Amino acid sequence: MKGIVDYSRRVRTTPFTPGVESAGVKNYLVYNHMLLPTMFESVEADYRHLKQHVQIWDVAGERQVALKGPDARRQLQLVTPRDCARLDPTRCLYTPICDQHGGMMNDPIALQVDEDEYWLSIAPSPVEAWLYGIAAATGMDVEIWEPDVSPLAIQGPKADQLAARIFGDAVNDLGFFRCGRFEWKGINWLVARSGWSGQGGFEVYVEGAENGMPLWDALMAAGKDLNVRAGCPNAIERIESGLLSYGGDITRNDTPLQAGLGRYVSDNQLDTCWGGRRLKEEREAGSTRMLRPVEIDGVLPAFSESWPLFAGETRVGDVRACQYSPDFATNVAIAMVDRDYWDAGTELETQTVTGRAAVKVRDAFWK
Amino acid sequence: MKGIVDYSRRVRTTPFTPGVESAGVKNYLVYNHMLLPTMFESVEADYRHLKQHVQIWDVAGERQVALKGPDARRQLQLVTPRDCARLDPTRCLYTPICDQHGGMMNDPIALQVDEDEYWLSIAPSPVEAWLYGIAAATGMDVEIWEPDVSPLAIQGPKADQLAARIFGDAVNDLGFFRCGRFEWKGINWLVARSGWSGQGGFEVYVEGAENGMPLWDALMAAGKDLNVRAGCPNAIERIESGLLSYGGDITRNDTPLQAGLGRYVSDNQLDTCWGGRRLKEEREAGSTRMLRPVEIDGVLPAFSESWPLFAGETRVGDVRACQYSPDFATNVAIAMVDRDYWDAGTELETQTVTGRAAVKVRDAFWK
Repeated sequence: MKGIVDYSRRVRTTPFTPGVESAGVKNYLVYNHMLLPTMFESVEADYRHLKQHVQIWDVAGERQVALKGPDARRQLQLVTPRDCARLDPTRCLYTPICDQHGGMMNDPIALQVDEDEYWLSIAPSPVEAWLYGIAAATGMDVEIWEPDVSPLAIQGPKADQLAARIFGDAVNDLGFFRCGRFEWKGINWLVARSGWSGQGGFEVYVEGAENGMPLWDALMAAGKDLNVRAGCPNAIERIESGLLSYGGDITRNDTPLQAGLGRYVSDNQLDTCWGGRRLKEEREAGSTRMLRPVEIDGVLPAFSESWPLFAGETRVGDVRACQYSPDFATNVAIAMVDRDYWDAGTELETQTVTGRAAVKVRDAFWK
Repeated sequence: MKGIVDYSRRVRTTPFTPGVESAGVKNYLVYNHMLLPTMFESVEADYRHLKQHVQIWDVAGERQVALKGPDARRQLQLVTPRDCARLDPTRCLYTPICDQHGGMMNDPIALQVDEDEYWLSIAPSPVEAWLYGIAAATGMDVEIWEPDVSPLAIQGPKADQLAARIFGDAVNDLGFFRCGRFEWKGINWLVARSGWSGQGGFEVYVEGAENGMPLWDALMAAGKDLNVRAGCPNAIERIESGLLSYGGDITRNDTPLQAGLGRYVSDNQLDTCWGGRRLKEEREAGSTRMLRPVEIDGVLPAFSESWPLFAGETRVGDVRACQYSPDFATNVAIAMVDRDYWDAGTELETQTVTGRAAVKVRDAFWK
């Protein structure tokens, strides 16, 4: 179902909206009160192109929450079970953010942009307001706000080639989840080797809305022979690649351990961080359910909010994302599955709006 | 500018959306991640009808934030400078909610729905997340969540007649900003004499999404001879009536005193509530700026985010809302105006996208 919505103060355009609109965007999500493109030609055509060429994505909806002040790092460490000791200005740290119960409030990439300033690049949830309340209530010396920073992603197998034409060959020396400053047109752009696809590429944290379209246009011009196009996070490719979507696959009702993010939960934080005691107990007892890649047979209706998962007539979880994958010739999906049913190879069923479909738990994502 | 946006998990439909769509809604806002109708026939035709007849409004986007537990009232009183001592289950209390600096986080109506349970009927801002963080950080014994409650408004001069046909004549005995339970079809509906127009009427807090359309349909059927129609908060009428819009007229950068809400700031709370010290200082020193009704001459372009206000070449504030009023044959507007320029009768200018326009400060709103 679709409808006409005013682009207003309550649904914001981005610095790249003129580029996105002239590229013929066909659909948006509202993401952190901002337009996030979700389709250009078609989800399947966009997918095919993403895997072969290079795309420029307006992901400005991944707003930054800035924490600045003497207590900024302490506040960050308070709300993530991941040990942030290694965080420095050259590194992107994927940090599950947890409430007092260990429930996930978000799963941003954390950056250190200055000695006492950090940015969290957030999925959609009101992290800024939540942290703003916590900081005041705990008396931490930290300012919290949403800066004028808009991520632009360069994604696809030719991303290295294209990025080098703007930022120089040195940008290709960045390791995975490393970041640095690269000069172009008199600005030192913050560029990270990251992005919400498994096809490789970069995210540029564009500081100052006025710098958005010049970079967009330059990338489009420089990439003509690489068949560059406007693109967006792709609903099929991200499931194949096992990239989770906070707000869809994961909510406040799930812990990072249940989300399969145990490698980002550091034992040395569990006595001090929010929800740490719960996570420690869960780790010791073993999780009772976990997000798993599953494949689903047959021709399915468009995925809606969630589909219940059954073993016979027993409810054993729910499917949280599902798309038909042309490359793997099956429906690739992500499900929260109860412990007794999560082993690879387990055969289950799901109830869609048009009937039951066979589900098989996999040992890994597709890529 | 308008665009196609998916109605997804991130932009929610309401229990009344089927009614709104079949009534031919022409435009929506996204309000607390939910669709809020903003126009049916035209803003001017909707306005004319609202002032003569009766309308049913889907204002489900005014989500409720529930606070329940032994510390629920204490937490509410901590974040509002309004003394809540009088709050009981028969009363609606308009409560400016403030951060640690006295800045407004929201301006809900507070209801007490049970001995230890309160609902805040919020304008768009992430109050739930903010309070959720504060409660955990301060160790208050309170649960905070968004319940399945969707306000439906009955507004207009014939609202009393229509409401009585469903809820019985006793509903007309409700005083302004009083509420009570009224039985219809086996449910005790929570009905308040309130609403975001100056035309009179009620708001029904519909508990349970499944109860939405039965009530909608019954009101529509019962009001045929009253010329009932689907309507929505009206951009013109609400300015005439001096009803402020949080997120538009007021933001976190404004105190309740600056918003002209001094009568809701209780001296006896300023030593203990968040931002109280700042509000006390501001009250003692006098505010340096305040929201004022202003009228603007001429044929103006559609109002955008804000227009700067000038006295000669001196910037003295900004216009925050402006609509042409057919009934008053002028542009009715709300502006934040610096102290030296806020007296009624002061002549100023504003800079619109098409040029300067003459502005006059008024002593009161229009109605």
